[in-house]
Amino acid sequence: MPAVHHKLLLEDALQDSPQTRSLLSVFEEDSGNLTEYTNQLLQTLQRVFGAQSEMGLATEQLSRQLLDYEKKNFALGKGDEEVITTLQSFAKTVGELNSLHSGLANQMADSMVFPLIQFREKDLTEISTLKEIFGIATDEHEAAMVKYSRLPKKKENEKLKADMMKEVAYTRRKQHQASLQYYCALNALQYRKRVAMLEPMLGYTQAQ
Amino acid sequence: MPAVHHKLLLEDALQDSPQTRSLLSVFEEDSGNLTEYTNQLLQTLQRVFGAQSEMGLATEQLSRQLLDYEKKNFALGKGDEEVITTLQSFAKTVGELNSLHSGLANQMADSMVFPLIQFREKDLTEISTLKEIFGIATDEHEAAMVKYSRLPKKKENEKLKADMMKEVAYTRRKQHQASLQYYCALNALQYRKRVAMLEPMLGYTQAQ
Repeated sequence: MPAVHHKLLLEDALQDSPQTRSLLSVFEEDSGNLTEYTNQLLQTLQRVFGAQSEMGLATEQLSRQLLDYEKKNFALGKGDEEVITTLQSFAKTVGELNSLHSGLANQMADSMVFPLIQFREKDLTEISTLKEIFGIATDEHEAAMVKYSRLPKKKENEKLKADMMKEVAYTRRKQHQASLQYYCALNALQYRKRVAMLEPMLGYTQAQ
Repeated sequence: MPAVHHKLLLEDALQDSPQTRSLLSVFEEDSGNLTEYTNQLLQTLQRVFGAQSEMGLATEQLSRQLLDYEKKNFALGKGDEEVITTLQSFAKTVGELNSLHSGLANQMADSMVFPLIQFREKDLTEISTLKEIFGIATDEHEAAMVKYSRLPKKKENEKLKADMMKEVAYTRRKQHQASLQYYCALNALQYRKRVAMLEPMLGYTQAQ
């Protein structure tokens, strides 16, 4: 593993040296790992949210069920009044717990699950889009270089040669631009990932 | 609906009058309704227990997941120490919540779900078994009566007639015994059902 700097220097993008490429691959490996971890964490957070949400629904059903006892109109209802009253007061308590559980589930959705979904959809997706654009630009530049190097050295080709040089320069500029954006995003990810990892847990703790 | 007494009188079992039969049918309707309600309530209580149990499992997974961040060994790990430490302390908090949730789930199983399962398996099943036995005894008694009434009135049949009378008396005694047990169980159910309905909710409230 190469010496780890914490930043891809934008001024290195133009030269695109093997050292820079090697550092880039470290950043790419890191963001790949982060994507994997984010997906796993998101699955777990959604499981926690799901359980909390189900708890709300289950207690809601229980509260209704307890009130249903009275509606059953038991043929031998005499002496049941006490049971009915007690079940009604239980239903009230369970109903209050239900509000608590449902509120907690909503808070979890908003401040625990949602921020991580946003991190995945916005930041991680941006990285993979920019990686793709950078890859295409690199391929195009290399193709232009190969075409240029294969030109016959004859004098009458000067016009064609000049056109090809322009193409090489153009694709090089495009690749340079793509790499600048890609480097920027990869650098930014290193800062954003800290917030992204901690924010859902702050939301969770706050909800409790 | 006939006037509702709260007790099937055992001394009425022998005479087995239409009035007693009618009162019996009220008790049977009541215990049928109670069985239906018990099954629904049990389903809901098991749903609540399931949600609580899933909450324990989900928080356990989350606690593990948070500790996994360190094991990911991110290539660009420098600066991550803070994130790792914070996630570890979150993992500890979540772990404590997990113990709470799991403990709560166990308490729910023991003092909320279990008593109602027992009521269903013991009391309600006893009623349906005794109802069946009573039905069979009634059928056998009626069959004996029919056979007896169809005996030819000739004098040489005296021996056969005496045997048939014994059979009628024997099946009548069996039916009487079955009805005594059945009445007893139906009467007892009226007392037990109150405890059976309230006990799981007391367990639930205690668990919270």
